[in-house]
Amino acid sequence: MAISTPQNAHPTSITTYLYDATSCEAVDGLASGAPGQFRWIDVCGLKDDVRIADLATDLGLSGLSVAELFHLDQRAQTDVDGDLVLTVLRMPVSSQPFVADQISLVLGPDFVLTLREQPRDCLDAVRKRLAGGKGRIRSSSGYLFYAICDAIIDSYFPVLEAQGDLIEAMEERILRDPEDGAMRDTHQIKRDLSILRHAIWPMREALAALQRDDMPQISDPLLPYLRDCSDHAFQLLDMVEVFRETAQGLVELQLSSLSNRMNAHMKVLTMIATIFIPMTFIAGVYGMNFDRASPYNLPELGWRFGYLFALALMAAAAATMLFFFWRLGWIFGRSDEDRRGSGSATDPSRH
Amino acid sequence: MAISTPQNAHPTSITTYLYDATSCEAVDGLASGAPGQFRWIDVCGLKDDVRIADLATDLGLSGLSVAELFHLDQRAQTDVDGDLVLTVLRMPVSSQPFVADQISLVLGPDFVLTLREQPRDCLDAVRKRLAGGKGRIRSSSGYLFYAICDAIIDSYFPVLEAQGDLIEAMEERILRDPEDGAMRDTHQIKRDLSILRHAIWPMREALAALQRDDMPQISDPLLPYLRDCSDHAFQLLDMVEVFRETAQGLVELQLSSLSNRMNAHMKVLTMIATIFIPMTFIAGVYGMNFDRASPYNLPELGWRFGYLFALALMAAAAATMLFFFWRLGWIFGRSDEDRRGSGSATDPSRH
Amino acid sequence: MAISTPQNAHPTSITTYLYDATSCEAVDGLASGAPGQFRWIDVCGLKDDVRIADLATDLGLSGLSVAELFHLDQRAQTDVDGDLVLTVLRMPVSSQPFVADQISLVLGPDFVLTLREQPRDCLDAVRKRLAGGKGRIRSSSGYLFYAICDAIIDSYFPVLEAQGDLIEAMEERILRDPEDGAMRDTHQIKRDLSILRHAIWPMREALAALQRDDMPQISDPLLPYLRDCSDHAFQLLDMVEVFRETAQGLVELQLSSLSNRMNAHMKVLTMIATIFIPMTFIAGVYGMNFDRASPYNLPELGWRFGYLFALALMAAAAATMLFFFWRLGWIFGRSDEDRRGSGSATDPSRH
Amino acid sequence: MAISTPQNAHPTSITTYLYDATSCEAVDGLASGAPGQFRWIDVCGLKDDVRIADLATDLGLSGLSVAELFHLDQRAQTDVDGDLVLTVLRMPVSSQPFVADQISLVLGPDFVLTLREQPRDCLDAVRKRLAGGKGRIRSSSGYLFYAICDAIIDSYFPVLEAQGDLIEAMEERILRDPEDGAMRDTHQIKRDLSILRHAIWPMREALAALQRDDMPQISDPLLPYLRDCSDHAFQLLDMVEVFRETAQGLVELQLSSLSNRMNAHMKVLTMIATIFIPMTFIAGVYGMNFDRASPYNLPELGWRFGYLFALALMAAAAATMLFFFWRLGWIFGRSDEDRRGSGSATDPSRH
Amino acid sequence: MAISTPQNAHPTSITTYLYDATSCEAVDGLASGAPGQFRWIDVCGLKDDVRIADLATDLGLSGLSVAELFHLDQRAQTDVDGDLVLTVLRMPVSSQPFVADQISLVLGPDFVLTLREQPRDCLDAVRKRLAGGKGRIRSSSGYLFYAICDAIIDSYFPVLEAQGDLIEAMEERILRDPEDGAMRDTHQIKRDLSILRHAIWPMREALAALQRDDMPQISDPLLPYLRDCSDHAFQLLDMVEVFRETAQGLVELQLSSLSNRMNAHMKVLTMIATIFIPMTFIAGVYGMNFDRASPYNLPELGWRFGYLFALALMAAAAATMLFFFWRLGWIFGRSDEDRRGSGSATDPSRH
Repeated sequence: MAISTPQNAHPTSITTYLYDATSCEAVDGLASGAPGQFRWIDVCGLKDDVRIADLATDLGLSGLSVAELFHLDQRAQTDVDGDLVLTVLRMPVSSQPFVADQISLVLGPDFVLTLREQPRDCLDAVRKRLAGGKGRIRSSSGYLFYAICDAIIDSYFPVLEAQGDLIEAMEERILRDPEDGAMRDTHQIKRDLSILRHAIWPMREALAALQRDDMPQISDPLLPYLRDCSDHAFQLLDMVEVFRETAQGLVELQLSSLSNRMNAHMKVLTMIATIFIPMTFIAGVYGMNFDRASPYNLPELGWRFGYLFALALMAAAAATMLFFFWRLGWIFGRSDEDRRGSGSATDPSRH
Repeated sequence: MAISTPQNAHPTSITTYLYDATSCEAVDGLASGAPGQFRWIDVCGLKDDVRIADLATDLGLSGLSVAELFHLDQRAQTDVDGDLVLTVLRMPVSSQPFVADQISLVLGPDFVLTLREQPRDCLDAVRKRLAGGKGRIRSSSGYLFYAICDAIIDSYFPVLEAQGDLIEAMEERILRDPEDGAMRDTHQIKRDLSILRHAIWPMREALAALQRDDMPQISDPLLPYLRDCSDHAFQLLDMVEVFRETAQGLVELQLSSLSNRMNAHMKVLTMIATIFIPMTFIAGVYGMNFDRASPYNLPELGWRFGYLFALALMAAAAATMLFFFWRLGWIFGRSDEDRRGSGSATDPSRH
Repeated sequence: MAISTPQNAHPTSITTYLYDATSCEAVDGLASGAPGQFRWIDVCGLKDDVRIADLATDLGLSGLSVAELFHLDQRAQTDVDGDLVLTVLRMPVSSQPFVADQISLVLGPDFVLTLREQPRDCLDAVRKRLAGGKGRIRSSSGYLFYAICDAIIDSYFPVLEAQGDLIEAMEERILRDPEDGAMRDTHQIKRDLSILRHAIWPMREALAALQRDDMPQISDPLLPYLRDCSDHAFQLLDMVEVFRETAQGLVELQLSSLSNRMNAHMKVLTMIATIFIPMTFIAGVYGMNFDRASPYNLPELGWRFGYLFALALMAAAAATMLFFFWRLGWIFGRSDEDRRGSGSATDPSRH
Repeated sequence: MAISTPQNAHPTSITTYLYDATSCEAVDGLASGAPGQFRWIDVCGLKDDVRIADLATDLGLSGLSVAELFHLDQRAQTDVDGDLVLTVLRMPVSSQPFVADQISLVLGPDFVLTLREQPRDCLDAVRKRLAGGKGRIRSSSGYLFYAICDAIIDSYFPVLEAQGDLIEAMEERILRDPEDGAMRDTHQIKRDLSILRHAIWPMREALAALQRDDMPQISDPLLPYLRDCSDHAFQLLDMVEVFRETAQGLVELQLSSLSNRMNAHMKVLTMIATIFIPMTFIAGVYGMNFDRASPYNLPELGWRFGYLFALALMAAAAATMLFFFWRLGWIFGRSDEDRRGSGSATDPSRH
Repeated sequence: MAISTPQNAHPTSITTYLYDATSCEAVDGLASGAPGQFRWIDVCGLKDDVRIADLATDLGLSGLSVAELFHLDQRAQTDVDGDLVLTVLRMPVSSQPFVADQISLVLGPDFVLTLREQPRDCLDAVRKRLAGGKGRIRSSSGYLFYAICDAIIDSYFPVLEAQGDLIEAMEERILRDPEDGAMRDTHQIKRDLSILRHAIWPMREALAALQRDDMPQISDPLLPYLRDCSDHAFQLLDMVEVFRETAQGLVELQLSSLSNRMNAHMKVLTMIATIFIPMTFIAGVYGMNFDRASPYNLPELGWRFGYLFALALMAAAAATMLFFFWRLGWIFGRSDEDRRGSGSATDPSRH
């Protein structure tokens, strides 16, 4: 498998951290440490592919593994290559939209190699702890390897919390105004969560592979730490699942909010229209021009209280409609028990 | 891994229960028992981190385990640390919204350590049984460890029953009035159930881990008890699943209730409007002012029974509409069989 | 674990069936058989807890198992307790709503103990077969144990068939009248199926546990029979799954039926309203009272055939609308092919 | 377990096919072959239960297996009974509605027994190949057993293809006219697919059981053939899954088609009504009968061009509405970009 | 199993590539290489079935495997046949609609046989690499076998990317105009993704089967390469899952867009209708023809400012409606907080 350097790769820059229990020194470029010292070779930018390939080959990577270092769209995974362990992870660099960069880690007996294409990363806290030298971080290459994995996994928590906040805000927004373009944003959240899930899942597998029995490159004291890191990945997946279910609930919330809203419109229209339509009809009847010479034609028009009669007729029509709406429970909060008892007999809308 | 004490931690208070088959004594602060006595060291509040860390280290916990005691957002899990077993569980403290506190348990050959941040807990029944001394609770540290796990798991049952009651009430409410804000509450129930499920699931795993073959710290006579406790966790998960499915059904119930409600509005509007619209049109026609000098202009207006003719025309229009609605089965409960037989030929709405 | 007798427990009654290959005798109360005889001790009602606990202890049950006998809300399960096998199952006693009673079975070398709280059970057929003595039922305690399990599992088939009939009836009902309260009943069916599924699933596991290799209490010749019983449980689960999917389909059927129904209402309203609205407008125009002294004001009113002209105008408006509806394919079944070819150019509702 | 012959069972008819590598002879009734000959005993109809039970017992089946032969509603499964293998499968006999008959196969060292209740089956092709003698079909009883299984599995392909055609036709129908009763048919398809899936799944398991290591009755050379048969079952399940997902899509397609259709109705109603309502109002105003003696009462009625003024007013109202609809993008295909830029400021329906 | 050549099979053409580390030669027809040379026998078109069967038998395939070569609708799978490995894969040849051709690969110690029915394939890059001789491709038959599998798997990436672009375009389209026929296209995308998933899934299994321990035909150095190929299949499945979830989201997006759109129509209709209906009613009242001889009949008509009074009445009715809509928050963006505080008391549509 030939090396295929990505187009427009960033210029390669290498920083070597030489450390042992008592000291830690950051050197620009590649450097060999004193015996007993561990090295973290931190490579960023894949442009100088020959230099990187040489370095990787010197460290003991096989041709296939070297070629894989240059593939930037790999699934998170752990491979064993002789004495070395090659783990590919993805670290989030942006939350909305969710973007994650690939980072390759190679663990050797006395070194850790990290390789990424973009200058940005989430490892500054690890660098500080290495410089500060507190805790066990300087005790072996394996522990540094764990610390880097842990920092990457933990960098997903803020991303998920941002998604959680977004979901909460969306819920408010949907309940306030379901017509407000929330659909597109909910769809976007769901897609981001779907991508997040498929990003974290293989990382969990890659971490689990590190803890299997057939992995002599990982020393036993490291196992509880890696297990802790796996637990964090599980926790991330739990969160993603809860968020996915909540986001799916948002879609249903929106559909029923829209339906509710439409119901409100419909009820207003129905009530106004059905109250006025019969009244307007009555007005229309007494606006007809039949020849009143015939005593049978519109005699009401000649009545002394004809107008009041017409108005009373209209009022009666409106009252009938209002009574009808009250029977249906649409107005004045008629209790449900009443409706159940009598509704079926008198309610034409229930047939 | 350094210890990171939570901000605003509660002040640390320690109670030691010294017990053996014949006696049980609760002592404020840390205490050592006589030989043959078991100890339950019940720590509450993480503020005094140095004291807690010293205590934990004295009991034999490794640095990583000690650090984990101070992480309050861990996934439920069981870890082995030398002779000790470290189990992290969550106990519910509020049902709506669902809130659960973390509690860490450490089982040693002759002690149980429990550690929680909040003063509230669900272990008073265990304390009473320990004081009362009935049954096997004073027989070993393992049995006390089981009793605490069991009390924690069992404290989920009231939470789930409250959710069940809520779902039942919501169902009534949706059927009575689907527009009533039930959407938000249903959404909330679904989210709580989703969180509950992801809280109980890892506890089931943590309990299962205690029963595995490679766990010499758990004595064989304890296994049936732990299995019983696991069964309760399974039962909780069964309940959560049934509730989740029922809550999902509530969403569908609501959507179809809203749809049903809108149908009712629409039918009323359609019937009133379509009955009166033709009648109003007829009234409008006879309200036109065409010059009746021409015999072809509105001759009906001059008829002796013109008004009655117009009223009859209106009645006929209304009757036609009513007949039509009866054909469609909207009114007077026309039987379905009739409709099927003849509907397709005469029913314009079925095209 | 202390014994907690359920409140309001039924009075305890014990029946002992003493049987061997040649005879079977039912004795009220507890009885010991002759050597070589098997016993079925059938206990009903948990009130006399001391007597039951003594009996169970005499038969060889441990304290935990004895305590479990008194828990009436256990998950179906199989536990091994020394020489004995303790299986908890649930037998259905009502189909709508679905209710199931717990029954505990203890299998010993020469006895079967069954324990239930309610007098009702589904084991009369087993009692008859035992009295009749046909087949292998009297050959061992294990075979009787299997026969009881089988009778319990098989008593779920009528329950599921009732659910199936209900689903079929519901389907008819929804298609006939989707507004008819079918929602609530469909929701109820779905919940019952969800509960049924979570009742049968652990019984399948309990039966599977009986067939595992590490179960010397179950003799090899019994295994094919238990496998047959497991197959029935699988068949039940298959049925439940098919019913669950069908019931979910009912919800969708209902939503689309309601939508369909509303479409029909809407189409009627739209057609009647849009046909008459322009006609009524024309009538309104010729009902205006402009001073006809000016020759420009409503000259049509003075025309000899003005009325006919107005009626023709109205007819033309109605015809235009009808043509328009025919173009849209709403009336007179205009073929789809025509609509596709020309619709986009002339159909304003398709933008 | 006693034999329970199904009610109204078909009369029993037995055909024996005696075959070896060089010859094949079909004999009515039961027959014994020469040494070295294989037998296919093809039993149809369960009425003569004693004869069948005797035959099965002679062939070496145990009592439980013999009893199982008479149960016609078994789940597909494979059981081992001494030297014999008993496999129960279901063969489809009708596609819509989907109906499948049970067929029991018993494989012995030198015979295959098939047993079914209905005369119809799907094995004519196997009979022809056996008569023709091409290929390996006469080489052993195992190969014939495989050939029968394969014929049964393959007879599901036409059933699934019919379902696939139905789904395709339904899709066309829904898009052409979603109100057309397609709901019921889609629901029926989904149910048939659900039943098909639960019919094929246990057959896959039954075939897998034949390939397990602990099955000495199946000779090694037969394994690739059975694996091929299993692959077909997998392929069937893949097809069922694709169809199920497509059918679920049909439901959604229908709901959105109905919604789309209703939108079209609504838009027509809204446009016609909102254009004419203001015009009709203007006509109504000038139809009022105020006493024109007062110069403030309806002076427009006396204007020389009052009628034209009123018509112009109406035209302006209609034009306003049309402009408004054009702004909303409902007519004349106003581009989306325009709408976005200006819509929010002037569009009252977007609040 | 007899060979069944597909109808209308393409004419058979065979190309043999003879290669070793230093040379590669493509020969028309079948050719034997020098010792130490590897062969890729590339067969296309199944018409000449006898020639293909002879070739396959010569290479060592069993009868069943030879017969399988002629089945063009197989599930992707890996079978072992003596020294040979037979893998069936499917390579995509069209993206919309998705179409995939079957390709059979046989790996022998010194040859690879590929067999396909259609002339088109996706292996030109492999041919070029073989001709160019760079990398390890000429080092063994196994490596070539891997290279072909890898090329086939990788040819799915452009297909999936096309689906991804389609989904993105569909999303834009639905948000712009949900009534636009997007339903059918979304349904089509979902079906294609469903088919894609069921095409890739068995390929993943076929590749996994190649890496199992019991596969001596695959040399150890090949394993990391095959693992890499498997990883790509996993990545494809991840992509398909994300796309499937997104496509499902599109359906919901569409339903809520349609609902939103209908809401907009409904609101316009409701507002225009409810504003004008009372105004038109007032005009109708003053258009009545009561005999004004009676002082009680329509006295307003005789008022000096009667017309202005009527207009004021109309304006008041319209203002009331507008105020009411403002209360409901339908116009002028009344803030949600106001509505909540006062809405329930005065808002009749909220009952």
